[in-house]
Amino acid sequence: MTMENVREHDAEAATTDDQWVYGFDELSSAERSVDGSWDRVRGLLGGKGANLADMTRIGVPVPPGFTVTARACNEYLRRGGEFPPTLWEQVLERLHSIEEKTGKTLGDPSRPLLVACRSGAKFSMPGMMDTVLDIGLNDAVVAGMIASSGNEHFVLDSYRRLIQMFGSVVLGVHDEYFEDVLSAARAAISTSSDADLDIDALRSVIESFKSIVAQRASIPFPTDPLDQLRMAIEAVFESWDGKRARDYRAAAHIANDLGTAVNVVSMVFGNTGDESATGVAMSRNATNGAPGLEGDFLINAQGEDVVAGTRPTRPIRELADEMPEMSEEFARIAQMLESHYRDMQDMEFTIENGVLWLLQTRDGKRTAQAAVRIAVDLANEGMISRSEAVSRISPEQIEAFLHPRFDAAALSAAEVIATGLNVSPGAATGVVALDPDLAERWASEGRDVILVRPETKPDDVHGMLAARGILTSSGGRTSHAALVARQFGRPAVVGAEGVDIDLSDRTVTFETLTIQEGDYVSIDGTTGDVYSEKIALIEGDMDDPYLTELLSWADEMSVLDVRANADTGPDATRAARFGALGIGLCRTEHMFFDPDRLPIMQQMIMADTRTERDQAIAALLPFQRADFTELFRAMNGKPVIIRLLDPPLHEFLPDRDELLREIADLQIKLLRATHLTELESHVDSIEHANALMAQIDAHRETNPMLGTRGVRLGVLIPELTTMQATAIFEAAADVIDEGIPVYPEVMVPLVSDVEEFVRQRRVIETAAAQVQEARGITLAAVVGTMIEVPRAALTAGEIAEHADFLSFGTNDLTQMTYGMSRDDAESGFLLDYLEAGVFSENPFATLDAKGVGRLIELCLEGARAAKPDMEAGICGEHGGDPTSIGLARQLGLTYVSCSPFRVPVARLAAAHAELAIKSSTERPS
Amino acid sequence: MTMENVREHDAEAATTDDQWVYGFDELSSAERSVDGSWDRVRGLLGGKGANLADMTRIGVPVPPGFTVTARACNEYLRRGGEFPPTLWEQVLERLHSIEEKTGKTLGDPSRPLLVACRSGAKFSMPGMMDTVLDIGLNDAVVAGMIASSGNEHFVLDSYRRLIQMFGSVVLGVHDEYFEDVLSAARAAISTSSDADLDIDALRSVIESFKSIVAQRASIPFPTDPLDQLRMAIEAVFESWDGKRARDYRAAAHIANDLGTAVNVVSMVFGNTGDESATGVAMSRNATNGAPGLEGDFLINAQGEDVVAGTRPTRPIRELADEMPEMSEEFARIAQMLESHYRDMQDMEFTIENGVLWLLQTRDGKRTAQAAVRIAVDLANEGMISRSEAVSRISPEQIEAFLHPRFDAAALSAAEVIATGLNVSPGAATGVVALDPDLAERWASEGRDVILVRPETKPDDVHGMLAARGILTSSGGRTSHAALVARQFGRPAVVGAEGVDIDLSDRTVTFETLTIQEGDYVSIDGTTGDVYSEKIALIEGDMDDPYLTELLSWADEMSVLDVRANADTGPDATRAARFGALGIGLCRTEHMFFDPDRLPIMQQMIMADTRTERDQAIAALLPFQRADFTELFRAMNGKPVIIRLLDPPLHEFLPDRDELLREIADLQIKLLRATHLTELESHVDSIEHANALMAQIDAHRETNPMLGTRGVRLGVLIPELTTMQATAIFEAAADVIDEGIPVYPEVMVPLVSDVEEFVRQRRVIETAAAQVQEARGITLAAVVGTMIEVPRAALTAGEIAEHADFLSFGTNDLTQMTYGMSRDDAESGFLLDYLEAGVFSENPFATLDAKGVGRLIELCLEGARAAKPDMEAGICGEHGGDPTSIGLARQLGLTYVSCSPFRVPVARLAAAHAELAIKSSTERPS
Repeated sequence: MTMENVREHDAEAATTDDQWVYGFDELSSAERSVDGSWDRVRGLLGGKGANLADMTRIGVPVPPGFTVTARACNEYLRRGGEFPPTLWEQVLERLHSIEEKTGKTLGDPSRPLLVACRSGAKFSMPGMMDTVLDIGLNDAVVAGMIASSGNEHFVLDSYRRLIQMFGSVVLGVHDEYFEDVLSAARAAISTSSDADLDIDALRSVIESFKSIVAQRASIPFPTDPLDQLRMAIEAVFESWDGKRARDYRAAAHIANDLGTAVNVVSMVFGNTGDESATGVAMSRNATNGAPGLEGDFLINAQGEDVVAGTRPTRPIRELADEMPEMSEEFARIAQMLESHYRDMQDMEFTIENGVLWLLQTRDGKRTAQAAVRIAVDLANEGMISRSEAVSRISPEQIEAFLHPRFDAAALSAAEVIATGLNVSPGAATGVVALDPDLAERWASEGRDVILVRPETKPDDVHGMLAARGILTSSGGRTSHAALVARQFGRPAVVGAEGVDIDLSDRTVTFETLTIQEGDYVSIDGTTGDVYSEKIALIEGDMDDPYLTELLSWADEMSVLDVRANADTGPDATRAARFGALGIGLCRTEHMFFDPDRLPIMQQMIMADTRTERDQAIAALLPFQRADFTELFRAMNGKPVIIRLLDPPLHEFLPDRDELLREIADLQIKLLRATHLTELESHVDSIEHANALMAQIDAHRETNPMLGTRGVRLGVLIPELTTMQATAIFEAAADVIDEGIPVYPEVMVPLVSDVEEFVRQRRVIETAAAQVQEARGITLAAVVGTMIEVPRAALTAGEIAEHADFLSFGTNDLTQMTYGMSRDDAESGFLLDYLEAGVFSENPFATLDAKGVGRLIELCLEGARAAKPDMEAGICGEHGGDPTSIGLARQLGLTYVSCSPFRVPVARLAAAHAELAIKSSTERPS
Repeated sequence: MTMENVREHDAEAATTDDQWVYGFDELSSAERSVDGSWDRVRGLLGGKGANLADMTRIGVPVPPGFTVTARACNEYLRRGGEFPPTLWEQVLERLHSIEEKTGKTLGDPSRPLLVACRSGAKFSMPGMMDTVLDIGLNDAVVAGMIASSGNEHFVLDSYRRLIQMFGSVVLGVHDEYFEDVLSAARAAISTSSDADLDIDALRSVIESFKSIVAQRASIPFPTDPLDQLRMAIEAVFESWDGKRARDYRAAAHIANDLGTAVNVVSMVFGNTGDESATGVAMSRNATNGAPGLEGDFLINAQGEDVVAGTRPTRPIRELADEMPEMSEEFARIAQMLESHYRDMQDMEFTIENGVLWLLQTRDGKRTAQAAVRIAVDLANEGMISRSEAVSRISPEQIEAFLHPRFDAAALSAAEVIATGLNVSPGAATGVVALDPDLAERWASEGRDVILVRPETKPDDVHGMLAARGILTSSGGRTSHAALVARQFGRPAVVGAEGVDIDLSDRTVTFETLTIQEGDYVSIDGTTGDVYSEKIALIEGDMDDPYLTELLSWADEMSVLDVRANADTGPDATRAARFGALGIGLCRTEHMFFDPDRLPIMQQMIMADTRTERDQAIAALLPFQRADFTELFRAMNGKPVIIRLLDPPLHEFLPDRDELLREIADLQIKLLRATHLTELESHVDSIEHANALMAQIDAHRETNPMLGTRGVRLGVLIPELTTMQATAIFEAAADVIDEGIPVYPEVMVPLVSDVEEFVRQRRVIETAAAQVQEARGITLAAVVGTMIEVPRAALTAGEIAEHADFLSFGTNDLTQMTYGMSRDDAESGFLLDYLEAGVFSENPFATLDAKGVGRLIELCLEGARAAKPDMEAGICGEHGGDPTSIGLARQLGLTYVSCSPFRVPVARLAAAHAELAIKSSTERPS
């Protein structure tokens, strides 16, 4: 939600004949007053009020009530805390209407109407604003209700709640005064639950509460129910401007000028006897999405009893046994609401003396797995279109299929002991380690570790990497912990308030619970929840039939192809299974790091003579060919882009620092040597090491990223290119011989000038022609280039004359466009930049539209002027990032390529990109 | 000269009534035949023929003659070696006309006409094609001439020359046969000069030559002068197609289809007695440009006597003593030619029996110093415009003022022993070293060394840098030696043929002369000449009044301002003296490397606490302020752009490898320690060194160029920016107090996003405001940014909203646009790329128009859309490169900034850029 889509100004000035109050049965009139826009209705009546009125209109039984508009709130605040003219009169009018509907009257001891007064802004601000229940009670009404209901405990309990709630919320008395009285009362009978207080105790509490109000507030507790109502409405209005609410809005980017509406609803009670009940239910299973009601209820109970767990609840299906008619009606209403809102609903209901009332309905929260199944089911049921199903699933939800998650059964038994920001998704469980070194040590011993820190710093990174998950007590969404955790795919919850870490005692305290370092905790980076125990995990997987169906719909809507980056046969097989339409990037250098091959590679680099070098190159060929054969088989005719050797050669040589240490050690050994043979052996070793060091130094570069790598290697050592091209085309010939179709594309990396490309292309074509001749196959040499150097993008017109395809290496392109080495930036200034908001996004995670995107645009402009249907994609991490995929589509790219695991996410994002374009072209500008 | 401007096709087909031959007096007719274009006249008659005809027309006494056209040559070659119809008839007709003018007849023993037959193509191809002199001699004519002239020796000598020249050039007899005869004759009288051969010896030589021809050639020496002439003309035609000429044209990018003209000129003789003389002269002094004839003559001598130095020549001014009339006439003609050609002339003349003949005139070669003085004088004399004077001087000539050059007097006594390619200008003298290690050692002992190698490789670079100059026997203009020498400003001559280096004997042989390693040689990288002795050098300087005047004219025509890069007061003073209009780049980091300051800088970097860091920063302030004060004083109100700290911090820390070695040494010492105190001291040292190493490693980066540097430092440590800004504005206040005007501009480096700039600008403005408040001055904070990261260029529209000026850091911009680290590229693949022609230019020397230039263009487009008169320049080496300056002007930049020494070059180049724009807009398209 961004500032733009929530900020709106109440353009018109208020007039005295404005309608400030709407009954739940006046929705049409509210709609007319704002020209029928549902968004504006929600602005006027608030989300809750609009929904209550909407339910009323479609015939769902909702307790009668009315809404005081958000505009009234704004006007009240504008007037410095004064109702606008006629507002109160309009309230009284609607109140009268409720009284008529219910046959009850506010303040009438014989048939008293009680109402709740609830805030309800346009956007949900949970817990941020005020609510007062049970308005309408006073001594006389209480007496009358006890007489008529015979349920003295319930009535007295409601009364003490009203006084406490009214006292604190409306009159501003600090809640502690009331809580102290309750504590004392509980202590007197040695209980921990207010529900155990008996009638005498409640009466005494009520008296104490009254005197607290009399003492602490500027006025005594108002006995006139109308005063109660008026003051409660005012209190809700005021709460809009409270510090807590303002802070929340600032954080959630909600505009300050929206105001809150106030809903006044007649109270219904589920605890009036065995013909009464209360419950909550989802219209489908929120964990796995299966159809059918899921929820809990209690006979003769209040709503909070269901939530608080003071009595064991019963599953909703058993309601049919107790109250078959009610059960049937609720099921009917649930279905009606689902059809109306075209989504799974989360409902609260109360049955008062055999009458069913819906108190609330909203789109139900669900797991990613449930979300996908529900979307697919709804589409298959014809309730929503396939496009809508696809658009309802977020990339993060697809991602969630890959993350470990808590076993639902195990989770239901676990208690949330803290909640923080859900900054890096996935669930993790392990023992608490309070410092990174310990985390690393324990992890190396095979223990699952959760690193728990007040906050993290660059020095902690080794511990973060060793841990299964990360929990911090401070820091926000752009904190070091959040960024690093996301970066490296570690589940993380940060800024968990109320978590107190004591590094000297080696303990962590969650509110009241204290645990030791080494004790188990579990964190859910998807929700932000923290648990003080070990919870069983389920590994992520993509083999979900609903997901498969949804993604097949996504593919049908997409224009962008999704390919995968894969260097090996198994990677390619996985990519194909995840729906990749080809390999967008096979990095051949990864093949040379294999222990079998590295020595040959080093031989090639350190060869003294050309013959020696050519021999080493020749020895590499069979390995390369075998790798490509596997890839081609796995992709079965889908395009496979193979990038020629890219990294600087020193990457294949031993680590310089290690070698330096080795030499120093050898020198010390030499000094200590006592026998001549020992001495000689050390001298030999030192000489050998020095020779190696000379080679390493010869290949050492100040800025290796900008040094002798990529196409530059191929230009300097064309034999390398010949070897790689030969391996590619020989592998293709082998696979063709097996009867498997094959479509290799050869990619030249790091080109900055067309001439480099032209020369390499010539070498590749020569190799291809020789293989074709030798093997009697015909297979065009498709040769393209990677655009990863700004100059290649700027001179794309020339390059396109010779290249068959372009692939944007957006990682390097970002590095060079920003003048920023990813390694150095991410371990250096970049986190500071993101924390301080200098950069709003990490450009290595999300493709930068203004700079890199502009360069891509210029490149495509130039290239397509030369070759109008030039194939062009992006490979690298951006290819799996939904925002970047959207940008790629806008820029006119033809494919994205990402790691096999990201392919499903990318397929969804590609469909979203298409839907966004469609909706932006459909929307009148 | 490029292929384009020399290639031209003879579009019309030849017809039989074509005019193939033009007398020197038929220039107007030749002009008419090619529509009056002088360029086409030169194409038709060749450069020499056109000039001889031109001199004839303006009344200069030129020996009568005619030109056979280049089209005739082409037609002859097209016909497989056959004269086109009527050609020979036309030759005979013009020959007759010469005979009439001279009163002599070809082959007439009593009054014989002798002619020379010289090639003359459109573009000079010195020594590449053939010439035959003294055509017309045979036994009878020789006898007649001896009788009439009484100069038997001269006539016989001419005869033997004709037979030798005709035999080798026309008849294809190997010259060695003739030379062997001459050697024997010289040996017989123990002389080394042919001139010493007496009459008998000459007669014997002539007989031997005749029999050589009879034996070796397919025909005997032709006695008919008309046969001689016809065959000579054919031989010149054929020489156009000779291998030597074709190779030359390929190297000089001269088209093969131009053909050569042939000039047939009547011979005149300066050795017919005391009324005869011969000489060469320049119309002005070729060394210093002073007005007045300069040259040499000999009474009763042939032209080659003057050149060969067999007799001591006399200075041209003494001609007035010997032949006052002739002297006066020559002076008049010299002036006439200078006026006609509007440039200093290099003339050959002969006086035959009291009659003056001009044999040749051409624009005279001159030193850079002379070129400048002559251009200025010609403009002041009204002969050329100031624009023309400026355009006649090349940037290299301005540069030459800076290079050491040979003392003219010392040079005139020295002999050129070899000539190679003049690849890196300037003169150098020193002892020969044949390997780089020796060069380095001798240089370190204070000896001046010339490194002489067959060719150079990257391993030789340390020796090249230690040497005063470099000489190689092979390699071309893009060889390693050439590129490195130019790069580091070492004079160099490469590919000097005939130089034979013997690395086992440690000798160098120049043709016949052999010298030892350690002997002196001198090389002139401006001309390509090599001398086998020590020659006194004159250091370069810019304090030349003519240069000053020329550059002041250049400034008047320029739109581009030229500023200098200067970090210190003395640099700034020099820049101002060289005419810089401001400081375009002051690199503040250079100030921190001073031994006084480096420890404070290190303290700042390694501070454990913020207080410690801030103290170190505060300690740096007075140093910075003092530096800026000096700069401001030197520039006296001209703009001074000061760039905030740019390099990564590790550059200020000790070298890591050195420290590693130190630690290893300490560990060895520790092992060897025998006393406890010694042991403890080593342990302490190791601990200290390890702590330092930890700091170094903390600041170590994989690609420091793309790491935490530039604005990133300022964003992370705003206190640094505050300190630098405070120092700038306090220094400005100090200088204002001294009554000196000041105009500082603060430049933020390496910006990639506008937000970085905005934050730094805020810091700078705050510091400025505080100084202004404290010092009671008003001085706007002018804050701009360096565009050195592609993204800055791509998002310039945003940046321009906040920046007061832009400066392109084209070095870094080139590195990032190409993805190429300069250090790594130049010690790695770049030389290979240039040698192999993958890149046609070194983009670090000459600004790349297609990539980097395009980016600059996009940047200015964006920036000027936001701020139409945005000041924008380039700083860095490109700012001193003439081609890059031309591009800068085309792109619409407002200034260039370069090293102080390059400022004069840049001023000239800026004027050239303007003249080029003018001429391109004047020229109809």
